[in-house]
Amino acid sequence: MAKSKWSNTPISNYDNLAKAIKKDARSREVTYLLLSLGKSCLTFLSELDKRELNSRVSNKEYFSFVYNNAQISRAVNKELFQEDQRIIKKFLMAVDSNGLKSLTSTEINKACYTLTISFACVIDLINRGDKKTPATYFEYLVIHLLTHTLKTDVASRVAVKVDETEEISLTLDLVLDLGEQKPKYHIAIKNSTRERGSEFWAHQRILENAYPSEEERFIGIFIGLAETKLDHRKYEVVEICVPNQWRIYQKYISKIWRIYYLDPPDAYIQLNNKSPKIIVKQFGEFFFETDKLI
Amino acid sequence: MAKSKWSNTPISNYDNLAKAIKKDARSREVTYLLLSLGKSCLTFLSELDKRELNSRVSNKEYFSFVYNNAQISRAVNKELFQEDQRIIKKFLMAVDSNGLKSLTSTEINKACYTLTISFACVIDLINRGDKKTPATYFEYLVIHLLTHTLKTDVASRVAVKVDETEEISLTLDLVLDLGEQKPKYHIAIKNSTRERGSEFWAHQRILENAYPSEEERFIGIFIGLAETKLDHRKYEVVEICVPNQWRIYQKYISKIWRIYYLDPPDAYIQLNNKSPKIIVKQFGEFFFETDKLI
Repeated sequence: MAKSKWSNTPISNYDNLAKAIKKDARSREVTYLLLSLGKSCLTFLSELDKRELNSRVSNKEYFSFVYNNAQISRAVNKELFQEDQRIIKKFLMAVDSNGLKSLTSTEINKACYTLTISFACVIDLINRGDKKTPATYFEYLVIHLLTHTLKTDVASRVAVKVDETEEISLTLDLVLDLGEQKPKYHIAIKNSTRERGSEFWAHQRILENAYPSEEERFIGIFIGLAETKLDHRKYEVVEICVPNQWRIYQKYISKIWRIYYLDPPDAYIQLNNKSPKIIVKQFGEFFFETDKLI
Repeated sequence: MAKSKWSNTPISNYDNLAKAIKKDARSREVTYLLLSLGKSCLTFLSELDKRELNSRVSNKEYFSFVYNNAQISRAVNKELFQEDQRIIKKFLMAVDSNGLKSLTSTEINKACYTLTISFACVIDLINRGDKKTPATYFEYLVIHLLTHTLKTDVASRVAVKVDETEEISLTLDLVLDLGEQKPKYHIAIKNSTRERGSEFWAHQRILENAYPSEEERFIGIFIGLAETKLDHRKYEVVEICVPNQWRIYQKYISKIWRIYYLDPPDAYIQLNNKSPKIIVKQFGEFFFETDKLI
C-alpha cells in the first residue's frame, strides 16, 4: 500500500475517510472516521496558541490558531467553535443512532462547524495554501450527513441532452435521488462562494430546463461553510458577500430552495426579508426540515 | 504623488495606463502607453533565457522565460509570440490611424498575443503569484481596442430590476452601448476560464431576461487569452477545456454570439461543427466582423 501523504499528521485517517465515502457514503464506518479525525484535529489544536482577530463582522468574534510562532490558521468563529470533544462525539453518536432530533439545530450546527473548521485549520497550518483538501473534507461530511439522514445513495452526474441524439454528463457537487415519485436534489457544497455563486444558479437553471416536468424536477440546495476572509497582515476578518447579485440570480437565472451556512453571514440572512425571496438558514436547521424534503 | 509599486520595473508605465483608461479608454494616449509598455516588456524578456516546454497540446509548441536561473514564466506559444518589436509597433500605429484592415487577422492576433503574454510573463517573473495585474492589463488592452474600433464609450454596470420598485447594478467586465437603434454588447474578458465559464452564460441569461425586447437586447461576446496550464515540476503544458459543459450552457442557459481567443484551444474551435453551435475564433478576426456588430 502506498504511504499516505498525511502519515504522522493529525489527519492520518483522511485517506481512509476518502475510501470509505467512495465505498458507501452513509456507512457507520464513515461516522466513526469523522469522529476519529475530529478528535485528533481538536487534540492537535488544543496545544496551540490562539490569536485574537480584529473582527469587522458585526456581532461575531474570531480568532486564529498559531503554529510554530509564525503560521496562522483561517478565522474561527468563537461562538460556534467547541473545543470540548464531547460535543462532536455527542453529535456523531446521534447520527449513528438516527437520533439527531434529540439535539437542537444550534447544537448540530456547532458540532458541524467544529468538525469542518478544525480540519481546515489543521490543513492551513500543516499544508499551507492547500484549499482543496478542506473543501473536499467538507463535501465528505455533508455527503455523509445527507445520505445517512435521507437514507439514499449518491449520484454526482446528471445526463443532459444537447441534441436529438447526444447526452452529456453535467458535473455537479452532489445529486440525491430519493426514488420514484419523490423529488431529486441538486446540492452544491462549498467552503465559500466569494464572487462565484452564479455557477450554482446556472447549474440549477440547466436542470430546470433539461428536466422541466413536475415528476422529474430537481430541488436546489446550497450548503456553505462561511464567507470570511482573513487579512494576514492586519489580522482583520471581513465577510465577502454579494447579496444584491444573489437577488438578481434568484430572479433571472433559477430558483434555489434553500441556502444553508455553518457560519451564516448576516448580509445573506437579511435576504429572507427581501424580494425575490431567498431562504438562508444555519445548516443545523436542515435536519428539522427533512420532512419537507421527503 | 505616491510612488508607484512598479517604479524601476519594465512596467513602470502601468499606473499611467490605468489612469489613461479611466480618463478616456479610446484615447491616443492609451495607444502610446500600450506601445511603450509592450516595448519595455519585450526588451526585458529579450535578455532572458528560454526553456523549452513539453507540450501536450497537439500542433502547438510552448516555451517559458527563465529569470535568475530559477523562476519561470507562464507558457508562451512559439508561433504566436513575436519578439521583433516592429510587429507590435505596426499594429498599434494601425490602431492609431484607424487602419487595422490593412493588416491580416493573423497579424493582429499575433500582435495582441505578444502584447498580452509579454506583460503577463514580466509579472510572473517580477511579482510571482500575481494573477490580477495581468488579467487587468488584458482587460485594458481589449477595452481600448474595442472602444477605439467601435467609436464608443465604456459602461461596466447595467441596472436590473429585482422587483417593482428596486433596481440593482449587475457587475460585468465590459458593456458597450453603440447608441440608439443599435445593439448593446456584453463582453467578458478573461485570461482563462478554467471551469468558471458558466458565469458568463449566467450573466448573459440575466440580460436576456431583464432586457428581452429586440431594441434593448445585449449581444454576448467572450474574449480570452488561452487555456494553457503549466506544470512547474514537469515543465509540461496542457490545455484545460470543458467543451461539453459549454454545449450544455449554450443550450440551456443563454446564447453567446462569439467566443474569441488569442491562443484558441482546438477543443473549443471544434465546437463550430457541433450542436448547439458555438462560434469560436481567433481574436484577430473580430476586427473583420465589426460590420456585423454595428
